[in-house]
Amino acid sequence: MEEFKVHFKPNNKSVKVPKGTDLLTAAIKAGVVIAAACGGEGLCGKCKVSIGRNTVLACQTLVESDLSVEVPKSSLESHAATKHESEEFTKGAISEREKSLKFSPIIRKIYVELPAPTQDDSTDDLERVLRAVENKIAQPRISTRLSNIKHLSENLRDSAYKVTAVIAYGEDSVEMLALEPGDTTDRLFGFAFDIGTTTVAGQLVDLNSGEILGTRIAFNKQSMHGADVITRIIYASNPNGLQVLSEAVLSNIEDIIEDLSDSYRVNMSVVYAAVLAGNMTMMHLLLKVDPSNIRKAPYVPAATRFGPTNAREAGININQRGTAVFLPGVSTYVGGDIVAGLLACGIPDSPELSLLIDIGTNGEIVLGNSEWMMGAAASAGPAFEGSGLECGMKAVKGAIQKVEIGPDLATKVETVWQEAPRGICGSGYIDILCQFLKRNIIHKDGKINRSIKSERVRNNGVNYEFVLVRKEFSATGKDIVITEDDIENLKRSKGAIYSAIISLLNKVGKNASDITKIYIAGGFGNYLNIENSVAIGLLPDINRSVYEFIGNSSLAGARMVLLSHDLIARADVVRKNITYLDLSSEPNYMDEYVASLFFPHTDMGRFPSVR
Amino acid sequence: MEEFKVHFKPNNKSVKVPKGTDLLTAAIKAGVVIAAACGGEGLCGKCKVSIGRNTVLACQTLVESDLSVEVPKSSLESHAATKHESEEFTKGAISEREKSLKFSPIIRKIYVELPAPTQDDSTDDLERVLRAVENKIAQPRISTRLSNIKHLSENLRDSAYKVTAVIAYGEDSVEMLALEPGDTTDRLFGFAFDIGTTTVAGQLVDLNSGEILGTRIAFNKQSMHGADVITRIIYASNPNGLQVLSEAVLSNIEDIIEDLSDSYRVNMSVVYAAVLAGNMTMMHLLLKVDPSNIRKAPYVPAATRFGPTNAREAGININQRGTAVFLPGVSTYVGGDIVAGLLACGIPDSPELSLLIDIGTNGEIVLGNSEWMMGAAASAGPAFEGSGLECGMKAVKGAIQKVEIGPDLATKVETVWQEAPRGICGSGYIDILCQFLKRNIIHKDGKINRSIKSERVRNNGVNYEFVLVRKEFSATGKDIVITEDDIENLKRSKGAIYSAIISLLNKVGKNASDITKIYIAGGFGNYLNIENSVAIGLLPDINRSVYEFIGNSSLAGARMVLLSHDLIARADVVRKNITYLDLSSEPNYMDEYVASLFFPHTDMGRFPSVR
Repeated sequence: MEEFKVHFKPNNKSVKVPKGTDLLTAAIKAGVVIAAACGGEGLCGKCKVSIGRNTVLACQTLVESDLSVEVPKSSLESHAATKHESEEFTKGAISEREKSLKFSPIIRKIYVELPAPTQDDSTDDLERVLRAVENKIAQPRISTRLSNIKHLSENLRDSAYKVTAVIAYGEDSVEMLALEPGDTTDRLFGFAFDIGTTTVAGQLVDLNSGEILGTRIAFNKQSMHGADVITRIIYASNPNGLQVLSEAVLSNIEDIIEDLSDSYRVNMSVVYAAVLAGNMTMMHLLLKVDPSNIRKAPYVPAATRFGPTNAREAGININQRGTAVFLPGVSTYVGGDIVAGLLACGIPDSPELSLLIDIGTNGEIVLGNSEWMMGAAASAGPAFEGSGLECGMKAVKGAIQKVEIGPDLATKVETVWQEAPRGICGSGYIDILCQFLKRNIIHKDGKINRSIKSERVRNNGVNYEFVLVRKEFSATGKDIVITEDDIENLKRSKGAIYSAIISLLNKVGKNASDITKIYIAGGFGNYLNIENSVAIGLLPDINRSVYEFIGNSSLAGARMVLLSHDLIARADVVRKNITYLDLSSEPNYMDEYVASLFFPHTDMGRFPSVR
Repeated sequence: MEEFKVHFKPNNKSVKVPKGTDLLTAAIKAGVVIAAACGGEGLCGKCKVSIGRNTVLACQTLVESDLSVEVPKSSLESHAATKHESEEFTKGAISEREKSLKFSPIIRKIYVELPAPTQDDSTDDLERVLRAVENKIAQPRISTRLSNIKHLSENLRDSAYKVTAVIAYGEDSVEMLALEPGDTTDRLFGFAFDIGTTTVAGQLVDLNSGEILGTRIAFNKQSMHGADVITRIIYASNPNGLQVLSEAVLSNIEDIIEDLSDSYRVNMSVVYAAVLAGNMTMMHLLLKVDPSNIRKAPYVPAATRFGPTNAREAGININQRGTAVFLPGVSTYVGGDIVAGLLACGIPDSPELSLLIDIGTNGEIVLGNSEWMMGAAASAGPAFEGSGLECGMKAVKGAIQKVEIGPDLATKVETVWQEAPRGICGSGYIDILCQFLKRNIIHKDGKINRSIKSERVRNNGVNYEFVLVRKEFSATGKDIVITEDDIENLKRSKGAIYSAIISLLNKVGKNASDITKIYIAGGFGNYLNIENSVAIGLLPDINRSVYEFIGNSSLAGARMVLLSHDLIARADVVRKNITYLDLSSEPNYMDEYVASLFFPHTDMGRFPSVR
């Protein structure tokens, strides 16, 4: 097959690709992450690049010769999150719960000074090490792999019998992953990951102190092959498709690992664990497990629990002997991300009726307590993650997360890290919708009020739109707008979530007011206005103190497993206690959904506090 | 590095090797097994080959150009054993014990017909399979690897949910190794191996019936790099030396696997287990574990238990998902072969004082019962395995195993499989020594009686020797002889074993007559004359009914583990119950040894029944 060299200007990286490869795919191979939201079909128009004087869409341009490609900043995906943000991930309920857990990381380093063998004590080298470690941590039996034995004799003698054993706790076993010369206990780290359909988030954690060093978030690179799980499952059925999708998300993970380890000067040799949580399709794709039956009735995954396995075998490049743990899920629609979220907020350990709402690409909801749990999935779409919207973005630097609109339609926005605005994230959109209703910029059905006379409201030729930030003030040099299509998209998302909550409550004969605690999770960054969320009809109109915003609960749950190995077994118990409710076969769900496609709802009696 | 092509005539195989490789090494790479007993130092003279009209020693000839090499039959190693022999391996005590064990092979195939998933039963594919299998074998939890999940969904549907799970029992866990479409339970096999310093023996076993299909024995190909463990450990310290030794014995294993599977038409796809027993050095070398400290005081192995592991990872080419189990040992001198032997003869399960004597390259001895065991190793050397003797060979086709010598020095020999004689095996030598004493051919010190006037007794220029079979009657076209050096060698071997037995008894304050049962194991083929063994002073002069010859007990023990998975855990208990006695630090051992360097002994009072 003929190959051509493509050179990308922003990072001066070159890559060889077969003739006919599209530039979006070539870019990913070169480590250049171009924004794309339409699955490479040329619809979103985000992947503009320059070849000489010509501007083209990367996804629509095939490589036919050696090329030099310039990627403008506006087409680049930023995947840098902020230290600030990572601190905010652990607050409120999750922070309290994390403190209550026993600090017992899944990896430990145990330093031992062994007596040298003598004629009277000629125990073999392996047993000499294992017995000392077993005694030190009161563990009856530690296993190890052959690879740790091959050079053991030499290593022990070279280090004068002073060695550090790296120990991994499994569900019902303990393994010595490695043996290091001398005392290396001072440095030991792990990664927690949330593998979402739209975003991938990772955290670097110090396993000695429990401290979170940093967090990174990136758009899932699989997105260029499909915005949702269904499209990706179809893509995976192409020859090599599963491989491509796996490599895409592994490349996300690699980026995050490299970025965090560079920033915090952590060498991969001291990183021995990665705990991953993700929805069922994401786990299949990452691990190259055939996902095809997930989208065929009766929607059965190949497996709901995976591993643990050697991290490198799974494609995660930490220490070559490091381990990867995957949070188990329940079914196609309730994945390991939700089990992680439940571990994080503690519903399975509380006698009180509680609710977890995870607003991601789907909207997964679990109602219950320590006795029982019932889960459901709403087809909410990724709007609240900023995906599929004209100026949507995730909650990273420059994302508008708070909005006020004055009576004169003057706008006041606040961005993540107070940077010049680049786009709008989920919490920003919630504020905008609420302000639109307050200022009568939209009707209750979401249509923009045509009678408004203002430069901010205009017809762009295809669509009515509202200009939130003029291009003079934006970081992108373009107006930041909300279109009528965006509003329609957001309305369906909020309607899907609200109606799912009500249907779940109906199923078990409860009212929203019976709930003691509602945890809202999702990629909103560090801010979500509950009052505004109720006002637009996303959340039920009950006592606001019941609500708590907990951020990325999937990532938090993965981190807790990293820091408390008992949760590996606990996760398996939790998943078994969850009953799945298929909303599509609930008789009244469609009626509920249709009734919720207004702001806040067709039945205003349900929202007494909303004027 | 320049490479040359070497063509070997006996099998028409060619191999490319770097300039300067010796022909012995080149031959092994080409799959031609040339006999060598001296470690490639040109001393044994067994590796004669022809290049054109010149005859050279393969080990002393370096490749400097492309070559065609003819290997005469007399220089070829035969590694074919006999069906007959394999039947004889299980007799007497071992056969009885094997019958008493619960038939529970370490691998089982479980056929299940699963209900197809429905909306009401949407359990994931993996759990659907595992639950059905768990129920069928009453096992609470079966694990499996990621590789079995990747194509599980497709495989299940393609086989209409009728599948066979291949289950492996570990020490405290059960794993699904593979899932096969349809009902494949009718064919399931495993291999048992004894990895000896001098010989490697393997058996192919039907895991459905327990039947032994066949047995093969070969000289350990490592021998060309050293006759004993010490030489090989030194060789292993060369660059790449460990790799070469591992590949040599893995090539033995491969030959045996290929030979048996061809003979019995067993495809590797239905072979899911290999159980291996061997001495400590052999296990280190096979698994490429650094053995260097085994030969340095205080003689500590890197490990005494290994695995289990994937068989292919260990270099054993059965089904790619098959498992390899290694019998654990006690110390440098008491290896997994002895633990296997104890499992085979049942000493650890009997209240009666018993003794196991394994006459191999070392002579390992264990005394004890179900309460306690004490083991020792005599430096017996491989003489009784036929190694290092002028016409020595292992007990395969054509080996002289029974000998009578008349008053006129006429000889009558019986060979394995009644083939024309090719050499003499251990049991043959025992008979010969006994007959030599009876006919006054040797003195009590082992020297050949110079006063005999017979063509059979002659000085070969270097040495006195006795012609047992004249070349007209031998298969090799050469006289089959016993030299004075051979007798000296055998005398030291028998003395080492006898004095070890006595020292062990002394240590625990017992007499030989206190022993209820003595099991003699070793590579004698299917015959050992106990009366003659006592007569030459190899075994104590006690009631003959105490003795039982049990053949290759290491191989038998490995086979029992293959057929009864409870023995995996049992082996670990057994090894822990054995105390090791270091003979070299026993004050009276040297005196005992020197006193035993006569036929039968300097103290005839110890052998009252020997005339």
